[in-house]
Amino acid sequence: MESGTAPVIGVIGGVGPYAGLEFIRYIFNNTRAVKDQDHLNCMLVSCPSLIPDRTGYLLSGGENPAQGLFESAAMLCRAGARCAVVACNTAHSERIFGPFRARAAESLPDLQMVNMLETCALHIKEESPRCTRIGLLATKGTHQSRVYHEYLREDEGFTLLEPEQPGREKIHEAIYNERFGIKAHSHPVKPQARNHIIYEIYRLVDRGAQAVILGCTELPLAVSAGDFSVPVIDPGELTARRLIALTAPEKLREPRRD
Amino acid sequence: MESGTAPVIGVIGGVGPYAGLEFIRYIFNNTRAVKDQDHLNCMLVSCPSLIPDRTGYLLSGGENPAQGLFESAAMLCRAGARCAVVACNTAHSERIFGPFRARAAESLPDLQMVNMLETCALHIKEESPRCTRIGLLATKGTHQSRVYHEYLREDEGFTLLEPEQPGREKIHEAIYNERFGIKAHSHPVKPQARNHIIYEIYRLVDRGAQAVILGCTELPLAVSAGDFSVPVIDPGELTARRLIALTAPEKLREPRRD
Repeated sequence: MESGTAPVIGVIGGVGPYAGLEFIRYIFNNTRAVKDQDHLNCMLVSCPSLIPDRTGYLLSGGENPAQGLFESAAMLCRAGARCAVVACNTAHSERIFGPFRARAAESLPDLQMVNMLETCALHIKEESPRCTRIGLLATKGTHQSRVYHEYLREDEGFTLLEPEQPGREKIHEAIYNERFGIKAHSHPVKPQARNHIIYEIYRLVDRGAQAVILGCTELPLAVSAGDFSVPVIDPGELTARRLIALTAPEKLREPRRD
Repeated sequence: MESGTAPVIGVIGGVGPYAGLEFIRYIFNNTRAVKDQDHLNCMLVSCPSLIPDRTGYLLSGGENPAQGLFESAAMLCRAGARCAVVACNTAHSERIFGPFRARAAESLPDLQMVNMLETCALHIKEESPRCTRIGLLATKGTHQSRVYHEYLREDEGFTLLEPEQPGREKIHEAIYNERFGIKAHSHPVKPQARNHIIYEIYRLVDRGAQAVILGCTELPLAVSAGDFSVPVIDPGELTARRLIALTAPEKLREPRRD
């Protein structure tokens, strides 16, 4: 990512649209800048019509979202992006991310893919090595795929605490419900969605979670990682910071303490 | 813009970065959608390192930002965008937009450019035909270029009310000051910047403005068009709505009344 003076960070958004937008905002918020030209060159492709719902695919089959993710990556690449991230946790499940990554590696070899879940796991291992009981809030697709378990493995000493079935349903509704869920109502998020998430965060803490991962990019649209008495981890913001560190380390702001 | 099933709306951002992001948010906010796939396909190119400050160029010369705007448009075009907007009012000044438009028309003939200032003027003429005394808050570059005067002409009956020199300085500081201005502090905007803008809006109203145009894309990051007793016009949001109407009219939400 070092050649040229203006490498472009690409974000595959649309999964969902507001989450992709928030990812770009994380990049801006974490960049040292007092004028336009101080900011990093970024690009967002938000083409949701190309990408079927990831949880729907994992639970019920149909067209693999990998194809639409690849098309979005190809758009970024044609436009000049040098690295890219998929702004959706569920898309990192092996059944989707595997074929996507393989096709991108073959056809878009110059585009460095940055893995959001790997970044999140690395952060926990490096920054909070004593934190081993970790809560996870995510879509049903992410839970079922056990993709976070691959990055925070039991044989490394991690215990991932996930909501029981009723809690998973509540989080699913907070994300997907057409009347009050975040995908249908992001501006502003409805209190009912926010309250579901807050309750499930504390349920995981009650069960002994030392930190809680907001493992779906819609969740940080409703709650702020800094608003809880326990560490709440936003993989999107961590990954935005990693992209800045890869692209222009001197521009990475100190982490926010809010 | 009618061919294909998924035309892509392109936004030339980075001028400034948060304003470009806000433009995409306007598109999402104004789209009827309850799930990801309902949203329109959009793309944001935010490459501020390519585009010198527009007001700086208009007042002091140097490299014409038209070149960087063109490069951003070319990136959008390569990625598949079918229409594009420049999310900066000052960039619409003829000394910048003229050469940009000419080069884009020649080299990117399939990319439909949508003009934000023309859209704003059309909206006023169609929706508020009795509104002829119009306040304008903008950068010094936009004021000096008199670009809004070309779209809301005196011989059509319009009177554009602009702040006197001290007011223009205040708005300039609200946008550019490195200690409290919007470009340096967008998350959140500093009260000092917001207060300058609120004061200048009411100054224009006191002078008889029937509506006030927020004629710089940074200004709506600080104040909400719906928060005033007079109509406050945000050309960015109007243009986002026009892009939706051009791309998928059935998806255009009713205008917000807040």
